[in-house]
Amino acid sequence: MNVNTSTKYSQGSKIRYRRIPDETIRRLPIYLRGLLLTSQKGRESISSQKLADFVGVNPGQIRKDFSYFGDFGTRGVGYNVETLAKEIKRILKLDVVQKTALVGVGNLGTAILAYPDFGIYGFDIAAAFDVNPKKVGRKIKNITIENVSKLWTLKKRKIKLAVMAVPRQAAQETADALVKAGVRGILNFSPCYIVVPKKVKVITIDIAMDLACLPYYMPAS
Amino acid sequence: MNVNTSTKYSQGSKIRYRRIPDETIRRLPIYLRGLLLTSQKGRESISSQKLADFVGVNPGQIRKDFSYFGDFGTRGVGYNVETLAKEIKRILKLDVVQKTALVGVGNLGTAILAYPDFGIYGFDIAAAFDVNPKKVGRKIKNITIENVSKLWTLKKRKIKLAVMAVPRQAAQETADALVKAGVRGILNFSPCYIVVPKKVKVITIDIAMDLACLPYYMPAS
Repeated sequence: MNVNTSTKYSQGSKIRYRRIPDETIRRLPIYLRGLLLTSQKGRESISSQKLADFVGVNPGQIRKDFSYFGDFGTRGVGYNVETLAKEIKRILKLDVVQKTALVGVGNLGTAILAYPDFGIYGFDIAAAFDVNPKKVGRKIKNITIENVSKLWTLKKRKIKLAVMAVPRQAAQETADALVKAGVRGILNFSPCYIVVPKKVKVITIDIAMDLACLPYYMPAS
Repeated sequence: MNVNTSTKYSQGSKIRYRRIPDETIRRLPIYLRGLLLTSQKGRESISSQKLADFVGVNPGQIRKDFSYFGDFGTRGVGYNVETLAKEIKRILKLDVVQKTALVGVGNLGTAILAYPDFGIYGFDIAAAFDVNPKKVGRKIKNITIENVSKLWTLKKRKIKLAVMAVPRQAAQETADALVKAGVRGILNFSPCYIVVPKKVKVITIDIAMDLACLPYYMPAS
């Protein structure tokens, strides 16, 4: 399981990267948020126990997750908040601004535009699209909504990330247009599985699916 | 890893349940959706390969996930769609209607009310609350929005599940009120970690966090 020590995330480490569990990658942004909020409080270091309490996982999990990337902590001193945040950003490729497009400006899309934390992760929602001609041209949060027929312009604008908040029936078609426009990462809110080429990564957030896990964990009483 | 054969989910199996990985539980609703959609097409059985293709995981994963619960498939014949859907519903405690409350009817809350798939999983959004007096009394999707000060009524209405779509600053306070009102499962959309008693399960959907994983998977080009 452990691929640490000589790893580090140099150019040559791509093959090793593949061995890092998706679940570890999923937790890194949680740690990052914990670190950024700790940093805002002016603290320079944090123990794995404190970081664990803060983000709601166990400290063993944190140490195991970090072990994939080398040695981040110093025994007894804890982690240096700034260094660790920087490293995680680099691992997640969040050390550069990631221009992102939103497709679908309904209730969900509007909520996404208003979401407070995209900035702290380095995301810049730089474009928004909708199919409804009544919405096209309107401005939300300084972004002018464009017609979905203009998705192809993403290529020359070098936008490679997209958030899709469209109805299920429009999901595959929208994803196809995004892929054609050079988008390589899609955060999908439609409750369906989307087929894309291997070079494209899709993460689906399925609200009903997450809700469907809850009763399992609830006490019988 | 494998706790199959004699398991089955009788009353006495609770201890075994705890050993089932959260990730397996998370995937069950995906399989369930695949099965329900397959059933709608009039198909009676499905192979693990077909189910895998349909939901976008590998067949080995499906077999491993199912192995925690006993023997669901017959070699060469595949899974019986109806039986398997029923079993998964029972495991997830979705075989009874789960009354659910929504707290926060902003853009996100409104989008949640309109979400198409709660019904197929057996959820009934039976109440909605907001802090804004202008919203209280308004009707959305046949649900009259109530004042958050009325959250305590959930206890006598026997609503034990809640979806929270409130600003981060209001999240802990809202969760406290929900717990006090007897809620035992919370789907939280605020980007923060919420402290609740052990008897309560919280699942947090953090949009920025999921987006933050995407660049990692994108090709360097």
